[in-house]
Amino acid sequence: MFSINKVNREIPDKIENRELKPFKGAFSLSPAGKTKHSPRLSVSKPSDDKLCRNLEEALNRANLKDGMTISFHHHLREGDKVVNMVMDEIARMGVKNITVFPTALFAVHEKLIEHIKSGVIARIEGSLNGPIGKFVSHGNMKNVCVLRSHGGRVRAVESGDIKIDIAIVASPSADEYGNCSGLVGKSACGPLAYADIDTRYAENVIVITDNLVKYPLVPHSIPSTRVDSVVSVESIGDPSLIVTGTMRITKSPTRLLIAKYSVDFLDRIGYIKNDITFQTGAGGISLAVTKFMGDRMREKKVKAKFINGGITKFAVDMLKENLTDSLIDVQSFDLDAIKSMSEDSRHFECSVDEYANYFSKGCLVNKLDVGFLGATEVDVDFNVNVNTHTDGLLLHGIGGHQDVAAGCDITMITIPAYRNRLPIILDSVTTVTTPGETVDVVVTEMGVAINPLRKDLVEKAKNIKSIPVMDIREMKEKIEKITGAIERPQKKERVVALIEYRDGTIIDTVREV
Amino acid sequence: MFSINKVNREIPDKIENRELKPFKGAFSLSPAGKTKHSPRLSVSKPSDDKLCRNLEEALNRANLKDGMTISFHHHLREGDKVVNMVMDEIARMGVKNITVFPTALFAVHEKLIEHIKSGVIARIEGSLNGPIGKFVSHGNMKNVCVLRSHGGRVRAVESGDIKIDIAIVASPSADEYGNCSGLVGKSACGPLAYADIDTRYAENVIVITDNLVKYPLVPHSIPSTRVDSVVSVESIGDPSLIVTGTMRITKSPTRLLIAKYSVDFLDRIGYIKNDITFQTGAGGISLAVTKFMGDRMREKKVKAKFINGGITKFAVDMLKENLTDSLIDVQSFDLDAIKSMSEDSRHFECSVDEYANYFSKGCLVNKLDVGFLGATEVDVDFNVNVNTHTDGLLLHGIGGHQDVAAGCDITMITIPAYRNRLPIILDSVTTVTTPGETVDVVVTEMGVAINPLRKDLVEKAKNIKSIPVMDIREMKEKIEKITGAIERPQKKERVVALIEYRDGTIIDTVREV
Repeated sequence: MFSINKVNREIPDKIENRELKPFKGAFSLSPAGKTKHSPRLSVSKPSDDKLCRNLEEALNRANLKDGMTISFHHHLREGDKVVNMVMDEIARMGVKNITVFPTALFAVHEKLIEHIKSGVIARIEGSLNGPIGKFVSHGNMKNVCVLRSHGGRVRAVESGDIKIDIAIVASPSADEYGNCSGLVGKSACGPLAYADIDTRYAENVIVITDNLVKYPLVPHSIPSTRVDSVVSVESIGDPSLIVTGTMRITKSPTRLLIAKYSVDFLDRIGYIKNDITFQTGAGGISLAVTKFMGDRMREKKVKAKFINGGITKFAVDMLKENLTDSLIDVQSFDLDAIKSMSEDSRHFECSVDEYANYFSKGCLVNKLDVGFLGATEVDVDFNVNVNTHTDGLLLHGIGGHQDVAAGCDITMITIPAYRNRLPIILDSVTTVTTPGETVDVVVTEMGVAINPLRKDLVEKAKNIKSIPVMDIREMKEKIEKITGAIERPQKKERVVALIEYRDGTIIDTVREV
Repeated sequence: MFSINKVNREIPDKIENRELKPFKGAFSLSPAGKTKHSPRLSVSKPSDDKLCRNLEEALNRANLKDGMTISFHHHLREGDKVVNMVMDEIARMGVKNITVFPTALFAVHEKLIEHIKSGVIARIEGSLNGPIGKFVSHGNMKNVCVLRSHGGRVRAVESGDIKIDIAIVASPSADEYGNCSGLVGKSACGPLAYADIDTRYAENVIVITDNLVKYPLVPHSIPSTRVDSVVSVESIGDPSLIVTGTMRITKSPTRLLIAKYSVDFLDRIGYIKNDITFQTGAGGISLAVTKFMGDRMREKKVKAKFINGGITKFAVDMLKENLTDSLIDVQSFDLDAIKSMSEDSRHFECSVDEYANYFSKGCLVNKLDVGFLGATEVDVDFNVNVNTHTDGLLLHGIGGHQDVAAGCDITMITIPAYRNRLPIILDSVTTVTTPGETVDVVVTEMGVAINPLRKDLVEKAKNIKSIPVMDIREMKEKIEKITGAIERPQKKERVVALIEYRDGTIIDTVREV
């Protein structure tokens, strides 16, 4: 049995004994937020020692066994050595059927494929970026994967949908009692925000660090009160891949034009004014948008209230120049961001709960004026796909996409009109990640398309002459004149992954390619 | 039915439908720490507005009704206007049978007595300092009060022993979305650490502020994600009573001698060395101890790892002079402490969970070398009373006493040998607050008495000539030669309050006087 959800997708009622709730609209479900579990306490007395000789000892103390769920966070990005280190050790210990629950996996984790093949990993619930996503898309994993937004992942843990048996924290600095900070150490990464919720609810928390210091490590992002074991290792990551030295803005004239249109549009509709709040990221267009926003704000002599995001040098420069009151940071993308966070009290780490959890009493995304977001596809109903490509391959995570779109006033999708000759605007996206009702504006090099649900924006944009403002179907036709129409690949029936909406309902499934 | 607990007290098996677990020893009970509840969410969408016109609106939004439990925190101390303001409003609204769940009540709250008499307040669970304690001691309250340590209160909330319906945060600054900070504003008080756990688990959280700022207030101690309503008022407190300008060290030669003996003793047994960690407070002797510790450390050219406590100018001066790496602060006692916390990144706010919760995976008190604590009485088994006086009147809260004593290596009770001609050392204390097994040294102007359980300290103290080291019974006799023996007042059978140990068991009861 199945039902049709709000965005017209078939959602099975049940899959692998799990009953699925179909998506009913961005705000239709009333948040409940009941915590169903909290950790047992293996350590609490003054005499308890958390330092382990090695990872094996920590995993043994955590009673590692077949079928457990192990969580990871991705602040070390492509430089991460910890996921592979832990899964190799688990394989060596002969344990099978693990559910891996990462905030995201990257190309550096390709070697997990061997652990999937050998039965060490039975399931992945988390973003699958790149090679593992491709592997899963081709039906190579026995169990169904689940993808969640940043905020949705917090909700899932807090509500007990996911029971984490062991949470692994890759910490650039830690003391022997488990206080963790990403601000200092040779593998410094800035915030440890993604690991916050895991350490609150996991049965057992293991901190792995390559910079062990004496208690108390202050300030810290994660306190000793949540940590069972501490393991000191030679290296948790490759610093050159954890953060980039300096990020470069795109040189592509097309992408620069998209960034320019985006900022121009906001300016023309009167949004670039004092106390504006916005989120940007580190993608090619995002960096240009951040820079152009700064330029425009300087010209207009206005100041932002805060900038949120994956923070980069471009946002840090705006803070230094006093173009924003503060930076709110879930993930630092470069060395400038880390340095700023450790030195400037106006640059503030934010937990993901606080950033994006809809099942909280009010998260930061609700206070955003503008969110600049990417996409792999958009459709004429403004539904956005960020997970799969048009060939059906699952290659990207959700990130904060659903959360920011639902929370902010203007969700602006900034994308090139086509990629590799494939048009970006379709009648219907391959996979719905984010519902169109939460998406307001699509900007391509063709111009700007406004969601007709936003009558206020349509009205404000009426007199804009300098940017082509058009219906999204018109934009689609313009693009197809260049690319031609596309043919969808034949997909199989089997569901390989679920796309969960931030409230725990299922917004789409991904089928085997 | 009743049973005899580990410190030989009769504990009823059940009282008012609550089953009581008798104290079994400081570390005998295995922590469980299951959270049994978490809040419903009245606000979560971008369109939800938290600002209320007045307190009545906030209380109505919180569905205030008869029999609810309302929590408060005591950072504003004798300057607090919020507890009275809220209880007056509840009375005005005609609501009855409220359980008040404060971290502590002070003399300024004496007017709550009228609300007790009129039936608005049916029960108090929390520290009763001064007039209300006296009122309760005389049997004027229908229901039994419950006293808990700072850490025990956190455990009680987290485990669901206490269900908070409405948590009130008195915040010196807040934004319209509920982010709270005590660092700035005319009523600045420093940390808001006591309110942390309440805001995590209360069904409804109301922030009352006299300094409303625009979102986002960063940094903040309590995030918007936990707050339902915000109320802006003219004044939350009297600044001159919230913090003292400058605290003065005692001029009493007796008390100075006790402080000197304490520091001398620690020095002679080899404890004043690099990386020492200790907790001090703001009592008369405590300030002198802090100052003398600084003097001795300067002489010996050693540096503390951290100082924890209620922080005062004397600890701040040590940080400035680099005599300690950091200050860890649950409560600021003077303006110097608040200023330091907002300016110096080595001065760090700590939640009470992190400070003292035994049902966590390792709290700060476990890492203390020395805790300097007070007492109203000590007995020859080293049991300590901090709650009642020898006349049986319940006049003080537990504070962190049980927690620090259980956690730190050397628990040192610094007290004058007698007060108002009443000896401080008895055969058996009037009320056991803290079990003797966690108390190591008693220092009076008579000298030092070491708990014989601490054979290591007895051994180390053998060659000390400069301080009188004696058996506690010997000290008791010396004191009684001055004061004479005492007569206990006749107490009635009726239990007026329970003294809970930090693990939720009952360590003693307080009877009607």
